[in-house]
Amino acid sequence: VVTPTLRDVALRAQVHPSTASRALNPETRPLVKPETAERVLQAASALGYLPNSIARGLKTNRSSSIGVLIPDLTNPLFPPIVRGIEDALLEAGYRALLVNTDNDPVREADQVASLRARQVDGLIVATARLEHPLVAGLAEEGFPIVLVNRRLESADIPAVTADDASGVAMAMRHIAGLGHRRVAHLAGPQWTSTGQTRLRAYRQAVLDLGLDADPALVVGADAWTEDQGSRAMEELVGRGTPFTAVLAGNDLIALGCYDVMYERGMRCPADVSVVGFNDMPFLDKLRPPLTTVRIPHYRIGTEAAHLLLQRIRDRQAPVKSILLPLSLVTRQSTAPPPSR
Amino acid sequence: VVTPTLRDVALRAQVHPSTASRALNPETRPLVKPETAERVLQAASALGYLPNSIARGLKTNRSSSIGVLIPDLTNPLFPPIVRGIEDALLEAGYRALLVNTDNDPVREADQVASLRARQVDGLIVATARLEHPLVAGLAEEGFPIVLVNRRLESADIPAVTADDASGVAMAMRHIAGLGHRRVAHLAGPQWTSTGQTRLRAYRQAVLDLGLDADPALVVGADAWTEDQGSRAMEELVGRGTPFTAVLAGNDLIALGCYDVMYERGMRCPADVSVVGFNDMPFLDKLRPPLTTVRIPHYRIGTEAAHLLLQRIRDRQAPVKSILLPLSLVTRQSTAPPPSR
Repeated sequence: VVTPTLRDVALRAQVHPSTASRALNPETRPLVKPETAERVLQAASALGYLPNSIARGLKTNRSSSIGVLIPDLTNPLFPPIVRGIEDALLEAGYRALLVNTDNDPVREADQVASLRARQVDGLIVATARLEHPLVAGLAEEGFPIVLVNRRLESADIPAVTADDASGVAMAMRHIAGLGHRRVAHLAGPQWTSTGQTRLRAYRQAVLDLGLDADPALVVGADAWTEDQGSRAMEELVGRGTPFTAVLAGNDLIALGCYDVMYERGMRCPADVSVVGFNDMPFLDKLRPPLTTVRIPHYRIGTEAAHLLLQRIRDRQAPVKSILLPLSLVTRQSTAPPPSR
Repeated sequence: VVTPTLRDVALRAQVHPSTASRALNPETRPLVKPETAERVLQAASALGYLPNSIARGLKTNRSSSIGVLIPDLTNPLFPPIVRGIEDALLEAGYRALLVNTDNDPVREADQVASLRARQVDGLIVATARLEHPLVAGLAEEGFPIVLVNRRLESADIPAVTADDASGVAMAMRHIAGLGHRRVAHLAGPQWTSTGQTRLRAYRQAVLDLGLDADPALVVGADAWTEDQGSRAMEELVGRGTPFTAVLAGNDLIALGCYDVMYERGMRCPADVSVVGFNDMPFLDKLRPPLTTVRIPHYRIGTEAAHLLLQRIRDRQAPVKSILLPLSLVTRQSTAPPPSR
């Protein structure tokens, strides 16, 4: 096999080698006309020409790739995070190897073993549970790893998360400001840091705002899904405890809540106000448009990629985590409680 | 560097080597208790043990990875397709390297060059334009490639697509059956096969069903986006041509249509019925829930992966494409036209 050279690429694209070189380097590419750059890159592709950055990586036995572990890409939370990760990695000449774990520990361990066999340089993990021996073990070993969205209970692992506690406080101030006193919480899974943080922040807000503190107002969902949201809402309604507003653990749980209200003829917001968490796409087109706490997902992705690349360059650097601010998006699912 | 052996993995996991072997092989893994499998896989991961399937791939200079080119992961069309691709590849021991091109030819050519430098075994391409020299060139070269969603005009490249023409015919029969005679079409980009096929099928249906054939009823959108949907709907309304129903090129274009109708106080479906295309998630929760043509996205992904793996195994096999059937999902955005 003959390794193609820059000259071969230039010949095939019918440009001067210096032009080919500029076109192949992302930093100098803007100096070349887009049509020319496209032609050069096509020629490089057809010949299997190896840009220097990648050739260097192969020599140093680094793959310039990163494993990204998420529960399920079809959960609308993850595409913008993954897109952010990929955009930031691309700038640095890295690629993401995406893995869906479905929160199955065996599947996850298998996937991680296979990613490591492929020599990934690090991992970005969105599947963390509070207790997570696999992730804790990797971090202990010194393997470059960054968590997104969630944290572990015990280990100090770099993480990029949203400031969930402030987000819940914002949402609860909004609900209380409308005059609600009996606010229910459909809490997310308590084996995740997000589920736990949001429940704690809800309890804190109930105290701080002087709302009715009634344990019957809290129902747990076993997963961050619409189905579990429905199940939790059914349980809440079945308890017979009065309530005029619901803080859902996330938007999908809020959607399950909508389903139950629709079936039972409960009106939102006339009878019950509902608040979600995440601001996933198209919530503004729901009936009614959902009030929610916006998380900057794309930015979580880019920050996580930058943090991981820093760790890959310097494994001894002190651990650092990033907390991103949230904002409340007020739509039509929240209104004053019905007057008696 | 000492290469870890199966014995090392078994020792660390405190199991018999035969158990470790069963746990490491996905086919025999069900014979082992899940906790044991998880422990073995964690041990393998910690030691950097190379399962045989991957070791074999490295020796034969194959990467067991596939490049997947999509325009943008945050378009809700793509996550289920990508998930289908990844699930099917995983079973065969392959991985997907995902690439977002933003429909930018230079970015795309750069990404393809980089994927080939990483020795991907083939490509699944969701970004095809009718004229697409890069993709046509790859296919001509004999490089394993499968298109999803779209096709090229000239080249015979294996593709997995939905039966768009039948889907449009179904939607138009539904609209005509409700009594509409003046049906507008907000057509998708005509440089894509999907945009072209759907527009042709619309024209055919207008003829077949004896509806009003008025060129002013067709407006083109320059992209498959909500923004372009709004722009096209504004143009349609601005023309002053009467119409009582809109067939949108896809769901996002339909959402843009909703925006304009809301702003202008036009009611859906009382004044104008709207039909989308794709059945992306959560359409049942829109106001009003959108009638649309359902495309089996996950299955498009799995079929594309299987087709590509076949081609990788046998590059001489005759080209084959797969056409998947569609179904109409009737919701509340369609109703009889207003009576005069």
